[in-house]
Order: sequence, then C-alpha cells, then structure tokens
Amino acid sequence: MWTFRTITGNTLLSGSAWLLFCSLSGFCRTGSRLRSWRNSMQAYKQLEGRFAQVTALREIASFMSWDRSVLMPEAAVNQRARQMEVLNVLIHDLQTDSEVGALLAKTDRKNLDPWQAANLDVMEWLYQHATAVPAHLVAKKMNQETKTEVIWRKARADSNFKMVQDELARLLDIVREHADVKSKKLKKPLYDSLMDGYAPHMTSAEVDVVFDDLAAFIPPFLTAALERQKEPLPLKGPFPQAVQEKLGRDLCGFLGFDFKWGRLDTSTHPFSMGIGDDVRITTRYDENDFLSSLQAVAHEAGHGFYDRHTPREWHHQPVGASGNMGMAIHESQSLSLDMQLARSREYWEFLTPHIQKTFGKSGPEWTAENIYRNAIKAERGFIRVEADEITYPAHVILRYRLEKKMVEGKLEVKDLPEAWNASMKELIGAVPPNDKLGCLQDIHWYSGAFGYFPSYALGAIIAAQLVDKMKRDIPDVAAQVRQGNIGVFTGWLRDNVQAKACLYRPQQLVEKATGQKMSTHFFKKHLTERYLEKAYEGEGSCSNTSAPGAKRRA
Amino acid sequence: MWTFRTITGNTLLSGSAWLLFCSLSGFCRTGSRLRSWRNSMQAYKQLEGRFAQVTALREIASFMSWDRSVLMPEAAVNQRARQMEVLNVLIHDLQTDSEVGALLAKTDRKNLDPWQAANLDVMEWLYQHATAVPAHLVAKKMNQETKTEVIWRKARADSNFKMVQDELARLLDIVREHADVKSKKLKKPLYDSLMDGYAPHMTSAEVDVVFDDLAAFIPPFLTAALERQKEPLPLKGPFPQAVQEKLGRDLCGFLGFDFKWGRLDTSTHPFSMGIGDDVRITTRYDENDFLSSLQAVAHEAGHGFYDRHTPREWHHQPVGASGNMGMAIHESQSLSLDMQLARSREYWEFLTPHIQKTFGKSGPEWTAENIYRNAIKAERGFIRVEADEITYPAHVILRYRLEKKMVEGKLEVKDLPEAWNASMKELIGAVPPNDKLGCLQDIHWYSGAFGYFPSYALGAIIAAQLVDKMKRDIPDVAAQVRQGNIGVFTGWLRDNVQAKACLYRPQQLVEKATGQKMSTHFFKKHLTERYLEKAYEGEGSCSNTSAPGAKRRA
Repeated sequence: MWTFRTITGNTLLSGSAWLLFCSLSGFCRTGSRLRSWRNSMQAYKQLEGRFAQVTALREIASFMSWDRSVLMPEAAVNQRARQMEVLNVLIHDLQTDSEVGALLAKTDRKNLDPWQAANLDVMEWLYQHATAVPAHLVAKKMNQETKTEVIWRKARADSNFKMVQDELARLLDIVREHADVKSKKLKKPLYDSLMDGYAPHMTSAEVDVVFDDLAAFIPPFLTAALERQKEPLPLKGPFPQAVQEKLGRDLCGFLGFDFKWGRLDTSTHPFSMGIGDDVRITTRYDENDFLSSLQAVAHEAGHGFYDRHTPREWHHQPVGASGNMGMAIHESQSLSLDMQLARSREYWEFLTPHIQKTFGKSGPEWTAENIYRNAIKAERGFIRVEADEITYPAHVILRYRLEKKMVEGKLEVKDLPEAWNASMKELIGAVPPNDKLGCLQDIHWYSGAFGYFPSYALGAIIAAQLVDKMKRDIPDVAAQVRQGNIGVFTGWLRDNVQAKACLYRPQQLVEKATGQKMSTHFFKKHLTERYLEKAYEGEGSCSNTSAPGAKRRA
Repeated sequence: MWTFRTITGNTLLSGSAWLLFCSLSGFCRTGSRLRSWRNSMQAYKQLEGRFAQVTALREIASFMSWDRSVLMPEAAVNQRARQMEVLNVLIHDLQTDSEVGALLAKTDRKNLDPWQAANLDVMEWLYQHATAVPAHLVAKKMNQETKTEVIWRKARADSNFKMVQDELARLLDIVREHADVKSKKLKKPLYDSLMDGYAPHMTSAEVDVVFDDLAAFIPPFLTAALERQKEPLPLKGPFPQAVQEKLGRDLCGFLGFDFKWGRLDTSTHPFSMGIGDDVRITTRYDENDFLSSLQAVAHEAGHGFYDRHTPREWHHQPVGASGNMGMAIHESQSLSLDMQLARSREYWEFLTPHIQKTFGKSGPEWTAENIYRNAIKAERGFIRVEADEITYPAHVILRYRLEKKMVEGKLEVKDLPEAWNASMKELIGAVPPNDKLGCLQDIHWYSGAFGYFPSYALGAIIAAQLVDKMKRDIPDVAAQVRQGNIGVFTGWLRDNVQAKACLYRPQQLVEKATGQKMSTHFFKKHLTERYLEKAYEGEGSCSNTSAPGAKRRA
C-alpha cells in the first residue's frame, strides 16, 4: 500500500482514496502511466525512508564531533575514533547501497512536488559524493582526522607546527587519495572534486576569477581605508571570562538565540552544529579582548539560525539540512550577522549601554562611536576569524591558494609555514611572528576539511548582496536595530533564505532573494560606504562572478 | 583468508602459517575436524565483526543519553527521540539479524579460549533478549521513555505526580507489552523476563527469599541501631555549589578518578556512563548538605572504575562492557565505594582536614568522628540514594515489590503514590510528606527501567562480601585508607572484579573473588560491626542466598 505525504509530512491520501479522487475528478492517468507514476512514487518514498536514517545518523555524528571538540576527556581520542569509524562506515554503507542508486534511477522527478524534487536532487548529490570514495578510505580519513585534530590543539597552544606536522602530512596524503579517486569518478579537477562537497557546482576556475577580482580591489582599498582611519581609543581590559560569558549569553538573547533550543559553549575554534530544537554554538575567550569573543557569538549564531529555521517538516530529510546547501550560503548567514549587522554603527548604538553596564565601564573610550570604531578597525592582521571585512577575503584567498597547491601536490606540509608567511606578506602586507598566529590558527585542514575555505569569501559577497536587498525591502531596518529590534534583521534572513532550506540551488536562491545574480558589486559598494563613507563609483550591479548553472545539485 | 586473533586483539597466525605450525608440532587435527574447527572459528570471527559494530553503537547511544540528561536543550526532546529511535532500531537490526543466530549456532564453544567463550555467551544473552522483542516495540518504548523522562524532571521539581502520571501509564503499558512478549520467548515469568536483562540468571523467586531474609533482619536491627545511635552534631551550611563542586573534583583525585579520562557533571539523578578512556559520572547539589553530593561522587566513581578497568583489548566486544555483567555486580562496585569505603571511620579521618580547609570550617562538629557519625547516621528517611546502609535494602525491597506488581498488572500507575506511602510505612516506618520525596525520586521507572531495582540490594550484599575478603587479603587496608592510600582499596576491586569484565558469570565471579558463594552473612556481619560495634553472632558464612546456576549467560 502506498501513500502520499504532503510537505508537512502528513499522509494525505491512501492509494485507493487517490484512485477514487482521480475518477471523480476526471484527473486520471491512463493505466500504464499510472503504474509508472506509482512505481516512481514508491521508489521516492523508499528513498525518504533510507535518508531519514542517514539524516539522523549524520546528526548523531555531528553531535559526537561537537562533544569531541567541547567536552570529551583528552585520553578518549582513539576510542572516539573507533566509535566514529563504525558510525561513519554505517552512514557510508546506507548512502552507497546499490539499492539507493537503483531507486534514484527509478524516481521520475516530474512526479514530485518542488520540495520532494529538491530533496531528490540533494540525495543524488550526496549519493554521488558518497559512492565516489570506498568505505575503507572514508574510515581511514575519519580516523586520521580525529588524531590530527587532537594533536593540533596542543600544537596550537604551544605554537609548535612541528608537533603536528607529521600527522597533518599523513592526513594530507589521505585527502589526496580521496581527491584522486573523486576526481576520476566526478570528472572534475583534483581540487574541484573536494570543493564540490562544500560548494556544489562551483569550479576553481570561477573562484579564481572572483578571487583575482577581489585581490585586485582589496590592496589599494585597504591602503585608502587605513589612511583615512582614525585610531580608536583602545578598550582596556582585563575582561574576566565569566563576565564575557554572561555578555555572550545576553547577546544571544538580543539576537533571539534562545537557550530553550540552543547552547553556547567554549572551544578552541568557534563553530556551530545542530538542527531545529538543538542548535549549539561555541566561542572562545581572550581576557584582553572581549570584541573577538562577542563577534564569534554573532557569527556562529548566524549559522545557528540557519540550522534553526529550516522547515521543521523537512528536518528528517536531506533537503531540510542547511549544511546540504553548501557552505557559501551558510557563511552568508553567519557573515550577515558578524560582518553586516554586528559591525554596523546602529548595532553598537544599541549594544553599548549594556556593555558599559556589564563591565562597569565609562569614559570616552566607552562611547558607541568608539566601540564601533574598534569593531570595524581595519588592520594588516594575522587571524582570519578576527579579521576586518576588508582583509577577510584576502585571508581566504591565501588559504584557498595554499590548500589548492597542497591537494595538487605542489606544496608539501613541511613547507607550509614558510609558504603561509610569504603569502601573508604578499596579500595582507604583514608576516605573523609565530605559527599560532599563522598556519596553526584554523581547525579546517587539521580536521580534514580541504576545499572549504573559498566558501567564506563567497559567503561575504552574498551577505553584502542580501543585506543590500534587505535595506531596500525594509528601509528603516537600521533604525530598528538601533532600537534593539534585531528580529527585523534576522527575520528577513529567516524568511528569504533560511526557511527555503535546500529548495533552490545556491545561485538560484541568491537570485530569488535579491532579484539579481550573485555579484561582487554589493560587497565593494558596502566596503566603500562603510570604510570610506562615500558612494561607490564602481561598475553597476551586473555580475562578473555569477556562478554558472543549469541544474540544481545533480 | 582467516586469521587468529589473540586476546590482545593482534593477529597471531594466518591460516596457512597455522597449518604449517600444526604439521611441525604434530598438533594437528584430522581433515574433517580441522574443517569444522575452521568453520567454527570463521563464524566466531564474523560475530566479533558484527558485535564490534553493535558495541560502538551502544556506546554512542549511551553517550546521546548522557547528553540528554546533562546538557541537551529542553526543546530538543522530540528531535532527540527521533535520533535515538533510528539508532536503536539500527542496533536492534544488527543484533537480531538472522545471520547472528546462524553464526551463533555454527560456533563451537570448545574451540574458543576462555575470553572468547565468555564473549560468545554474552553475545547469546544479548541475542536472546534482542530477538525476544520486535523492532517496532523497541522503538515505541525508546520514544515514550524520552518523553516521560523529560516530563518527570518537571514533575519532580514541582513535586507533582499527576503531571507525569499519564506519560508513565503509557510507558508502563509499553513495558508490559515488552514483558508479555519476552516472557513467552524466554519462557520466564513476566517480571523475571525483564529482570533477566539487568540481573542475568536470577529469578524473582530467589530474590523473594533474599529480600524476605533481609526484611526480617532489618526492622529489629534498625531499631537497635537507632536506640544506640548518639545524635551527631549537625554540619551546618550553606555549602555553596561551586565549593562543593571543587570538593567533588578533589575527591575524584583522591579516589584516582582522573579527568584525563573522565568527567564529573551535574544531573537531576546521579548516574555514570562510559568505557575505558571516556568515563562520565554525575552528581547533584544541595547547598544545605554536602555529604549527599559527596557520597554520590563516590558511588558513581565506583561504577566509573568498573567501566574504566575492563581489559582494553576487549573494549570493542560485548565481554568487555561491564554493563553486560548484570547490574548486581556493577552495583557491588559502586556500593563498595559508597557504603563500604566512604562510610568507614578511616576514610573520614583522611578526608576531614581537607573538608575543613575547603569550607573554611572548624569547631567540635568538624571532627572526623562527628563527620563520620553524620555519614553513617541511620534514620527512617525517604530518599534511597541518601539512605544509610541499614534502610537501603528496605528502600529497594519496596521498589521491587511495587514494580513487580505494576508489571504484573496488580498495581495501576494512578495508585502508585498511595501504594508507595503504605509500603514506606510498613518497611521503613516513615511516610514521605510529598511525592518528590516519594515515588518521584528515582529516574528508573520514568526512563523505562523496570526490573533494575533488585540489583541494588544484591550489590550491597556482594559489596560486603568482597570487602570482607579484601580485609583478609590486605590486613592493613583500613590503615592505608587513613593515610589516603585509597588506591589499595580500589586496586583490589580492579584486580579481583573489574579486570575480569564478563569473563565469569556473576555468581562465579563472587566465588572466585571471595572463595565463597554469595551470602547475606557478610552484609549482616558488616552492619553489626559498624552500627552496633560488636561481633556478629548470626549463622556462619554458608549461604541461603546463593544464586542457582549451571551455565553462564546462555
């Protein structure tokens, strides 16, 4: 017996009721068309059953990984690797079963409603990536990721790259094995075959165009902005961690991030994970700098809202998991908060009295304008997650270029610190004094994520474009933020982006939400208005960066 | 190609090397015997592969359950239920696959070394229990457990039984469905079919004998002890939670519970979970009573050491999971610490200076003798986990009798508070003023654990017997504890009990460790010596309570 499920997940009509409905309404297919349609729907429903399992197990795996980074006793690294290996092999087996391929082939997209069709597309994308790499190689990578990440934590604390060098080299070897296998199966260049797992349908050739454009724009713009910048009064600490934690929790409240369905914890590198009613974000603390931790809360809350606001009725399916949309859109949500909202003058006008009260501070450096100036202070700095909006894409371009070389075998792990520093000099004009401030700062490579970085800069570009449209839709949004009505800002993102989950492909989503193709125009316009406080005189809104694309994730 | 694995998990000899070894040593079976032996070993190895998966997934499920009780945002209850349902159905499917039955039938126990044979026995026990109940019923129970447990937390906080009554009634209905199905499959009475999952091979008929014996002993003994008891000076608080937390962590250090491989957290009801390098215990805090929290730390650390000290090379298999030994032995480990060690005079002589310093206390009530008197203070109290050693078994007997009636349909959930209070009056001589201090106090029933309780009292009996033997093996153990060398005490338990994991059946283990069958004698002797401070004049060490048993878990 087959049944129909509406997008709310309720059973709508049983097969026989449907037949009755068909004959009464005259809306009936011929016998053979009906049969083929029924087979197709049956196959789709079987896929939903299978992917409900996969989705739950992936949630569990994320969750075990959250625990590993936040809470797990340090001795448990190998034991956790064993558990994760079993879990991931199982997920891999469920996703790559030949039955999945057969069911995908049997399902006819034109019988599906738009959400079902989008769900099918995500399943196909997942299936493609999952079947590209054999199970033993997946397990091997997970195992080495766990080991490398734990040693990275120590190496980073000690600013000692050599400590983790061999483990990272071992991990890179495995990553390159993955890339080699994937590249052949997906018929993409080595690096692209990895990047497609994070930024579906984007090619490195296109990324090169975007990044070359920004790399040309940023250096002269940075110089202009630094020349114009008045040094803000420093915000002197110490800011005790417990007080910062309270401030972070208060900020969550202002943003609408509710601890009934969320958590805020501490980890070496801030991150977010979860879905729906269990969304967990982390930050880290520096007792001399409360802004760094506070911006991380805004950033991760941006990710968290995406995880929170995908449609509840699709949470159990791939189309409902925001992560399947690709990381560029996900980063656009975190950067909409971190960069667009939380570096706006109005935001600091609202937040300043609360900050003064929390830390018991007053005086000329504790005005909204001065805190704002601190928050948007541009500099030739070392740390990506603390970078200003101008240098941020340059940090990403650096990582993109290095990881591409590593994957292509053109850069060895032992030469990474030197290459990093050379690239910093070229792109940011500053060389970090040690590896903790250099190539040890980010968790990505040490946890096996190669091909992820470009999405960060794409996210910044998309965020600027989304917020530009938001301001046209809601002309008083800045005034609302100044009043503390931040829900107006986050609500627009919820309705126009987050609630769509994976219904559209990323480039389509941008076009639906903003009425225009993805373009660097809005990002340059935004930087010009904020940092030079003048109108942008660049080219119009036509894009030289719109991603190609006929089909969604297929 | 088949290989041999030694008990350390290393591959010892490949098949062909083994044949060579056989012919050289003359230790060779005939062709057909060799073939049958080889088939048997192959089947066993396949079982190990399957149960390595099951073991890892069970660890993950415990861990998700720990999170649910300690950290999870409250809104996530349904979402977590969905995740747990998928995971548990998967575990169930892996354990109940008809292939497992076939492989168990194919494996000849006499080809296995003692650890392998014990592993096979535990597999069989797991398979029997898992196949007794169909998957949909397992999922249904898990789902209802999650819901009931979350509402119980609120009901308990509000001391409002009615709030959780309907959910518990729904859960009991499902538990009774389970019991009905299991009872038929395992050919055991209704209640016994559940209890066998926690206390393998024990019958309620035997438990009745033990409990009737203790129920006869305790009331007159309690009266004698209370008459003799001098009221200790009260230990007046408040004891701030943060300071108690520090004290709890310090106690972990004294006991040898190391945060490199363990955690101490807070939950409504103290519990423990984990294995090997990731052992997590919880306690709870009452700012007017630090002893309650501190005893819970000792209790849960006792469980934790068992999880910690099973042989590392068997952690990935059922024989290495202490939980598969049954809860009576597990409770004997927690009660050896909580009751035997942490209510001994020497323990308080060691701990008192540290307690004085931590709380900044001095004066006549802060002597070791007075704290000891507080710790062993007997009373007609309401809370099991805070009960003294004399009334503890009475608390258990009460629960055992009520849950047996509920499972047998002789007591309805709506009548539980009344029945509880009547039973308290009869057994302890005191009626709780509200349900928070009554039938809402324990998590067990509200998380679906019926048949668990009797193990607590069996654990107390075994703990007394073990520590009696320990004192004969290490005559100066009390003096060592007084010096803070608590490792002498925990080390004996590690070597004689915990390191054996599930190598022996529970009753065998007791006999191996103490040289005698399980007996209530040592428990009564212990109570008499501690509370009446005189020699026990009861019958000798012959047991009227030794459990029956020809076979281990089969």
